[in-house]
Amino acid sequence: MVMQVSFSVAVAGASGYAGGEVLRLLLNHPDAEIGALTAHSSAGQRLGAHHPHLRPLAERVLQPTSAEVLAGHDVVVLALPHGASGDIAAALEDAGSDALVLDCGADHRLTDAAAWQQFYGSDHAGSWPYGLPELILADEGERQREKLRAARRVAVPGCNVTAVTLALQPGVATGLVDPADVVAVLAVGYSGAGKAAKPHLLAAEGLGSLAPYAVGGTHRHVPEIEQNLRAAGADTVRLSFTPVLAPVSRGILATVTAPLKAHVTAETVRAAWQQYYGDEPFVQLLPEGTWPTTAMVTGANTALVQVAVDERAGRVVAVCAIDNLVKGTAGAAVQSMNLALGLPETTGLTTVGVAP
Amino acid sequence: MVMQVSFSVAVAGASGYAGGEVLRLLLNHPDAEIGALTAHSSAGQRLGAHHPHLRPLAERVLQPTSAEVLAGHDVVVLALPHGASGDIAAALEDAGSDALVLDCGADHRLTDAAAWQQFYGSDHAGSWPYGLPELILADEGERQREKLRAARRVAVPGCNVTAVTLALQPGVATGLVDPADVVAVLAVGYSGAGKAAKPHLLAAEGLGSLAPYAVGGTHRHVPEIEQNLRAAGADTVRLSFTPVLAPVSRGILATVTAPLKAHVTAETVRAAWQQYYGDEPFVQLLPEGTWPTTAMVTGANTALVQVAVDERAGRVVAVCAIDNLVKGTAGAAVQSMNLALGLPETTGLTTVGVAP
Amino acid sequence: MVMQVSFSVAVAGASGYAGGEVLRLLLNHPDAEIGALTAHSSAGQRLGAHHPHLRPLAERVLQPTSAEVLAGHDVVVLALPHGASGDIAAALEDAGSDALVLDCGADHRLTDAAAWQQFYGSDHAGSWPYGLPELILADEGERQREKLRAARRVAVPGCNVTAVTLALQPGVATGLVDPADVVAVLAVGYSGAGKAAKPHLLAAEGLGSLAPYAVGGTHRHVPEIEQNLRAAGADTVRLSFTPVLAPVSRGILATVTAPLKAHVTAETVRAAWQQYYGDEPFVQLLPEGTWPTTAMVTGANTALVQVAVDERAGRVVAVCAIDNLVKGTAGAAVQSMNLALGLPETTGLTTVGVAP
Amino acid sequence: MVMQVSFSVAVAGASGYAGGEVLRLLLNHPDAEIGALTAHSSAGQRLGAHHPHLRPLAERVLQPTSAEVLAGHDVVVLALPHGASGDIAAALEDAGSDALVLDCGADHRLTDAAAWQQFYGSDHAGSWPYGLPELILADEGERQREKLRAARRVAVPGCNVTAVTLALQPGVATGLVDPADVVAVLAVGYSGAGKAAKPHLLAAEGLGSLAPYAVGGTHRHVPEIEQNLRAAGADTVRLSFTPVLAPVSRGILATVTAPLKAHVTAETVRAAWQQYYGDEPFVQLLPEGTWPTTAMVTGANTALVQVAVDERAGRVVAVCAIDNLVKGTAGAAVQSMNLALGLPETTGLTTVGVAP
Repeated sequence: MVMQVSFSVAVAGASGYAGGEVLRLLLNHPDAEIGALTAHSSAGQRLGAHHPHLRPLAERVLQPTSAEVLAGHDVVVLALPHGASGDIAAALEDAGSDALVLDCGADHRLTDAAAWQQFYGSDHAGSWPYGLPELILADEGERQREKLRAARRVAVPGCNVTAVTLALQPGVATGLVDPADVVAVLAVGYSGAGKAAKPHLLAAEGLGSLAPYAVGGTHRHVPEIEQNLRAAGADTVRLSFTPVLAPVSRGILATVTAPLKAHVTAETVRAAWQQYYGDEPFVQLLPEGTWPTTAMVTGANTALVQVAVDERAGRVVAVCAIDNLVKGTAGAAVQSMNLALGLPETTGLTTVGVAP
Repeated sequence: MVMQVSFSVAVAGASGYAGGEVLRLLLNHPDAEIGALTAHSSAGQRLGAHHPHLRPLAERVLQPTSAEVLAGHDVVVLALPHGASGDIAAALEDAGSDALVLDCGADHRLTDAAAWQQFYGSDHAGSWPYGLPELILADEGERQREKLRAARRVAVPGCNVTAVTLALQPGVATGLVDPADVVAVLAVGYSGAGKAAKPHLLAAEGLGSLAPYAVGGTHRHVPEIEQNLRAAGADTVRLSFTPVLAPVSRGILATVTAPLKAHVTAETVRAAWQQYYGDEPFVQLLPEGTWPTTAMVTGANTALVQVAVDERAGRVVAVCAIDNLVKGTAGAAVQSMNLALGLPETTGLTTVGVAP
Repeated sequence: MVMQVSFSVAVAGASGYAGGEVLRLLLNHPDAEIGALTAHSSAGQRLGAHHPHLRPLAERVLQPTSAEVLAGHDVVVLALPHGASGDIAAALEDAGSDALVLDCGADHRLTDAAAWQQFYGSDHAGSWPYGLPELILADEGERQREKLRAARRVAVPGCNVTAVTLALQPGVATGLVDPADVVAVLAVGYSGAGKAAKPHLLAAEGLGSLAPYAVGGTHRHVPEIEQNLRAAGADTVRLSFTPVLAPVSRGILATVTAPLKAHVTAETVRAAWQQYYGDEPFVQLLPEGTWPTTAMVTGANTALVQVAVDERAGRVVAVCAIDNLVKGTAGAAVQSMNLALGLPETTGLTTVGVAP
Repeated sequence: MVMQVSFSVAVAGASGYAGGEVLRLLLNHPDAEIGALTAHSSAGQRLGAHHPHLRPLAERVLQPTSAEVLAGHDVVVLALPHGASGDIAAALEDAGSDALVLDCGADHRLTDAAAWQQFYGSDHAGSWPYGLPELILADEGERQREKLRAARRVAVPGCNVTAVTLALQPGVATGLVDPADVVAVLAVGYSGAGKAAKPHLLAAEGLGSLAPYAVGGTHRHVPEIEQNLRAAGADTVRLSFTPVLAPVSRGILATVTAPLKAHVTAETVRAAWQQYYGDEPFVQLLPEGTWPTTAMVTGANTALVQVAVDERAGRVVAVCAIDNLVKGTAGAAVQSMNLALGLPETTGLTTVGVAP
């Protein structure tokens, strides 16, 4: 006999891409009851006006985002612009809510207040347990998922951060690569830039174009990647990070290279990646010679990884493909939620992509 | 008074993408008369069946590719698969043709026979003057264009090679960056893969996907880039090179990083790039803070470059955008042809892109 | 207490797009056990080489397509090129299989042997119960789903046919429009053209292009649409049908117009569509003023419909958006399978799309 | 001996897509000198910030749009939002300018003030000579180009209007089709929607989507098409018109059908189209069996047309592909300008597209 225990989930920022994707996944979660959906300027409107693909929720009406509306749910997902999570989380505490709170924004990801200040230019909201269950914790000899069991707060990782971390961390944890000279270049889709209408995000601009941005180490995901690679065992991390917008809606294809330590063979490298990912439900090392593409993971919570040794260049090249809205955001939130609620980690999540 | 001297051009391999683009540019060249157009399996067909966008040539009929057909022209452009140029060039000599021959294929690019053997797996056809006029020749203190004046043979560079070389060579020539640890990741469009119908090149596969290939140092453009950076002054070149297919038809966006030498400022770096490109008609350093996109150069012979110093990572990040079919192939051929024929280098070429 | 009764499904032609999509849906079907997967030239290969997005089936090996391999399953799905289904269906009978057979190809769709001969140029294989549950049967006063209950053979409809039929049939059934002058123009994605590598289906060709084909009434879906509209009550059907390839992988957006009978108001028209679709689980009339897009239905079994009256033109304009691989093919197969097996019609199918 | 007479051109609204495209074409016009470039909210900015693909003009600074700035040029092109042209044209007259004024907006296209009022909801600015040189004028037995010679004012047609008109008008002029039941469905690219950042025009929304708009006869181009078909000889025009946004930046693919008069053969139809377009430099009937695609005309002033008879449906199907920004807007402006200035009509314009 199976006891079906359902729980209620409120989503703040339900009109945006991250909020919509959380809802898409929750609609497929056997135990989740979708509760209040809130928004800022769109409050009062039908959800169907924003996410017409979510047919079962089309007639739901968006409420204003407030602690009053959100409190009383078992789980609250914050899918808000950076900087907005701290206040609402505090207000939820004040309101006496004991909800599990998952923050899809950046506010609670960084443990280093100085790094926060440098890259975000505002006061640090503090750090929450980090929602990347597969993160290798070198000191503890375990994965981050152990920190998420029974957590009451979760900081969902940045999408680019997840791709780069998953691509490279086995090499860092095993000491096979030198994390002091990592170069990561990512081809990324437009949904990662959000739904705010800006001229350079127009279809007429993006179609037919490949466009880098935040070049030269200014992207806010840099310190978060560094933090992860240190967790995975790096002493010193130096990272060159460049994202390039490409005309796809979803997807991140991260190409990550780092110097290979001397006398390390391709077999040893491959074995290291397999060692860390062989038992992971959502991170998979592809068969040798097959390279990940984003089409393979569209709509899925899968991170596909491949690694090669370039002897001529003296570098390991690791590639990771994810759907930025799933494993990069909403899927990570649901996976962490499952862990925090004591459910099987894979509940309601899929490794089956929508292709072609 | 201007003497208008026209010359005839034959194009071998006119049914492919490179051949078609050569024709597109020649149609806009004031002095070129388009002569014989040849093909292999498509001989006997109308050009309009292959390149319906070239309206003025639609009724031209493709002839078989042979020295007989090509000889008798002032210029012969070879737009053939790798390995096919050597024989036809030899046959042209035997036929007594004194035509200027431009090879858009790889056969005559590499000076190092061993590198050719390693990456192409066949016998080396020998090297011809290299058709990248902007290439810095450190030893001679000049640019490659001097070698192209009055040349009778030209090896047109590989498209990815051009993008990576133009992005980084000022840093190499000035000694500001260390060429022993270059990392280049390129987002590239589908026309670079040619017109042969292969399953992974189908629109259904490519749309919505970001797909790396030739990962781990196996791409044939690697030794050619190394050769160029050595020409620009590097003693030792080590290069990690990864191309990623993105759903655009045209365009290469190369992100190239290399370690910055100690105590070099961003101003010094910028000045170096400006020094080498300030007078170039087709290579332009964008204003500070503006990053190149491929849409800016679609259809144009322009290479747009930007460079930044990432102090945290200790690297220079240089980005170059080109149209792979123009500056990456056909435009380079025409630019080299102009030099070889003693015409103004820019004749028939444009820096005006087609956007959005 | 719920009795879980599972059944086995074999898929012939599992390496193609239709076969892959059937598998994607079956992976989410609670009662289906995926049995033999067969292919022609790809037999012996891993399914992961063809459909790397179907992670749970990646290591499955494709078997040759034969009655021996397929027999012994409860359900056989044929996802084969047109003309291949008849033989294998006959062989299954000979082999004594009592499997439910669903044919995703065209072979068994048309009841009119002459129309088959005219449009397909081969002998007619006969017609099977037609797998469009929502088809209005004017004479019987019911929907096609009644014919599918306990069916042992199902002819899955053509994807374009489904879109046009669902767009217009309420107007035909109610006599509000004149089916003697229907014009349908469809924007369609590339996956509908299948996985065979043909030059005009290359990404380089398709990106940036809008390309009509089978113009002038030659498309094989024409007689099938006519057949459906006659079923829905039309005496005489005349149809102008034009598909236009657009650079999306999935999706059909059908714009269908027909003359409006005199003195009919927009309210009456809207009410007719609502009357027929108000209770349908997978066909939905959108709120007034909202028009369907294919992004709303990507990956979902939903057909979204909207209708307007153009008084100036004297025509009704009805638009239908579907995912050609789901409601247009594989979803229709699963929906029909559910009906034939006596399961709830919606089992394993979703109305939740993957967007943006 | 050729006298080279140059003239100056000012462009109002130079920061938008239409204005940028006018500049792109003028850069290739041998006789045009590009004068003042004006904008509204972007005045004071570099043109390179808006159109980085127009390298030779990158450092030009945008001036405020005013009669003072525009007067004194030989030609003024207005590329302004609908409704803004009337005032500036009047102000130019007041300022004593005798410039040739070309209005790329809608303000001066319609001759029927009531139709303007109905579709645009504002007062009619009056009509100017209509800038579609190929328009058939049935009553005069000539083409519209005769009206443009020495014109001082030109109303540049709407882009969709041009595509539909060119597709169908030979059938109307010859009386082979019935213009009382025309159905036009257009697949259109995003640049036609302009550069204003609106949520539904975002790349994340448009990629992977096919989206109709202005369905049911509400599009403002409807009365303009009707006006043209009446000019071509139609007594009564009834038009069902539906545009569908597809993920391309440029391009319109218009599928236009109309009832074929009785006893008309396909040969007769083809001859009619050939009769009217055989001598046109920019409108070409493709060889039988070849259908136009937008890729064939990208960047070119070409309109490619094909026509078929669908006997089963009793309709002619005519297809026209144009680049909405060239033949649909800026190319039409330049072509009309050439006529008005007494230059060869084709000066500075090309039929060579940029493909693939």
